[in-house]
Amino acid sequence: MNFIENGSVTTPKGFLASGVHCGIRKNQTKKDLALIFAEVPCTAAAVYTKNLVKGAPLKVTKDHLANGIARAVICNSGNANTCNADGEEKAEMTCDALTKALNISAEDIIIGSTGVIGQPINIDAIIGGIPELVESLSKNGTPAAEGIMTTDLVKKEYAVEFELGGKKVSIGAIAKGSGMINPNMATMLSFITTDVKISAEMLNEALHMAVEDTYNMICIDGDTSTNDMVSIMASGLAENTEITEKNADFDLFVKALVMVTAQIAKSIAKDGEGATKLLRVIVSNCKSVEFARTIALSVVSSSLVKAAMFGSDANWGRVLCAIGYAGCDVDITKIDVSFKSKAGEIPVCENGAGIPFSEEIAKEILLCDEIDILVNMNDGYQRAIAYGCDLTYDYVKINGDYRT
Amino acid sequence: MNFIENGSVTTPKGFLASGVHCGIRKNQTKKDLALIFAEVPCTAAAVYTKNLVKGAPLKVTKDHLANGIARAVICNSGNANTCNADGEEKAEMTCDALTKALNISAEDIIIGSTGVIGQPINIDAIIGGIPELVESLSKNGTPAAEGIMTTDLVKKEYAVEFELGGKKVSIGAIAKGSGMINPNMATMLSFITTDVKISAEMLNEALHMAVEDTYNMICIDGDTSTNDMVSIMASGLAENTEITEKNADFDLFVKALVMVTAQIAKSIAKDGEGATKLLRVIVSNCKSVEFARTIALSVVSSSLVKAAMFGSDANWGRVLCAIGYAGCDVDITKIDVSFKSKAGEIPVCENGAGIPFSEEIAKEILLCDEIDILVNMNDGYQRAIAYGCDLTYDYVKINGDYRT
Repeated sequence: MNFIENGSVTTPKGFLASGVHCGIRKNQTKKDLALIFAEVPCTAAAVYTKNLVKGAPLKVTKDHLANGIARAVICNSGNANTCNADGEEKAEMTCDALTKALNISAEDIIIGSTGVIGQPINIDAIIGGIPELVESLSKNGTPAAEGIMTTDLVKKEYAVEFELGGKKVSIGAIAKGSGMINPNMATMLSFITTDVKISAEMLNEALHMAVEDTYNMICIDGDTSTNDMVSIMASGLAENTEITEKNADFDLFVKALVMVTAQIAKSIAKDGEGATKLLRVIVSNCKSVEFARTIALSVVSSSLVKAAMFGSDANWGRVLCAIGYAGCDVDITKIDVSFKSKAGEIPVCENGAGIPFSEEIAKEILLCDEIDILVNMNDGYQRAIAYGCDLTYDYVKINGDYRT
Repeated sequence: MNFIENGSVTTPKGFLASGVHCGIRKNQTKKDLALIFAEVPCTAAAVYTKNLVKGAPLKVTKDHLANGIARAVICNSGNANTCNADGEEKAEMTCDALTKALNISAEDIIIGSTGVIGQPINIDAIIGGIPELVESLSKNGTPAAEGIMTTDLVKKEYAVEFELGGKKVSIGAIAKGSGMINPNMATMLSFITTDVKISAEMLNEALHMAVEDTYNMICIDGDTSTNDMVSIMASGLAENTEITEKNADFDLFVKALVMVTAQIAKSIAKDGEGATKLLRVIVSNCKSVEFARTIALSVVSSSLVKAAMFGSDANWGRVLCAIGYAGCDVDITKIDVSFKSKAGEIPVCENGAGIPFSEEIAKEILLCDEIDILVNMNDGYQRAIAYGCDLTYDYVKINGDYRT
């Protein structure tokens, strides 16, 4: 099981992709419309944001995926098509136009939008862009990865390959971050493809399992978006024995899927708005996995912890404080905390109290751009990892005037 | 019922106060130790942080207040005395030293600490400072208000006077903000005094009622502190008929107390770390007061809303988004949103969808330094106000390297 160099959603057999500038964004050098097309009907599943305010495209997608089958994903950036009176109508218009261009049913289309909320979407630009989008479909996934980016600085596309029942199979994914990111699904847009043969039901189960441990454990700013979703399409062209139950093949598939989604989670966190550092909070030896997740997310979400990490300041008291208000009934006096990076590891708190440590060495460790905050609860056997980033001047800058 | 010019904790009859630099802070121009002394035994009550990690002084205070009686408040800034193995011991040592200097029982002392977590507190400095602290007790409350400040830019002291059963009575308060501020009590330090005669039980009840609507509705950064508390001492020297039950006098007392605590809540929010603007989120016509409070706090806590307000950007979609993830079962399609300041008021969202508005006028309104975000749920009769501030470069700067 390994990552493929330059892997993307087009790595699995049966998928093409494209991305163009259609005119939603003013900046003509920025792509704003992406397409993934499956050459055969796919089993499909999706997970949606838990925000009560849901983007119009999500409602439309939910309807379309009721039968567990899909052929295409279309997604624009630059406008979320959310909180607009005619949002669903325009999402359906987009699907209708794509239906004609690809000769597929509208019910087989997954649609997403990302960008500013509450501004009318330029439907003429989208419909005008569809012919070029369809014409430029190819085995290159990168234009699609670029087409869904908003404030992301880095495109996110990955693929893994592995063997399943004697067949070589693969899973590919593209994603966008990078603000309004908080647990409670889906915290982002991510479109996944695979050539594994798997029933819609098992695909749905696998996706939920992978999301729980990875995408739902990212926090950039505590704001759960209205539009985020993760979808997966499985073409079945790898010709493995179809996965229809929770057997060894299913477990292997989930493992590979988690490998992709964890990598994307990490890359989204690292590319969080304004971020200069990736933070991972690793909670170990906790009495329940729910507590471990809640505590890890509480620490990674703390503005004070995030600001301290930006300043390379080993202010571990803020870590303990964020554990204390996480709402979990834990024994604070058993907790050990260390900071770790490629420069080394330094224990700073034992049994819930400070211990003497070298500020100089701590600083050296925290100056690195990938930092692990290790929280050992010493009270059980469960663990969880949460992904986040530091809080910086640039986060404020980016979000102080996003719309202009 | 009105505010008194230059009112403070010394306004009510029977209270003296002082503040000195004792040496916890390096900067000799910054006071770091404060005292409030009651000339007679007072009924007393307090509310404490809900963080599981509690400062040592809070544990000591809780023990001391078990009998509902107090004579003095001592509080240092510059060190939270939290997450130190010998924290309680040192808090008791402080009380012992004060006991001797004031000739009162250690059990009658309320003790607080605020500042960095997890560093040993300089007990010698505190004990060395107590003689000067006691000698300088006077009817001037300002040195005490200054002695408890940390990153606060503005000292916070207020007093109201009103008539109660034919007697002139007053309530005074000092407080400190300004980071690590989040609902769930007490999110700050505030020490209140009054000369009203009231039983410890009713005083406790009144304090909890006032805190619920004011201090618990402030959010600066979502981090619930380990050390925060609000205490109140009532000297009874106004000689009103003692309040021992929930009668008209009790209601009037609560009203006056809320007037003081609301003013302090507002001043703490406005002086939030790095803040340039006070934000008030006013949720009206909601189906329950719990929903109204939760929604108001969700909006005022949103990093994206706070950053937009910093940038004077009428990005109301973020307001709706924060309502959507608040976890309350409400009808999004009924919600109206307006922005308001002394420059005017502008509706931006009706029935959960955007309406056309002048960006120019909106900008003018949002450039003011006190902004109200009005959220009309159009689905009930309850309301709540939450207090917060914008998210700025300076918040990041202050918290990126707080300890040095």
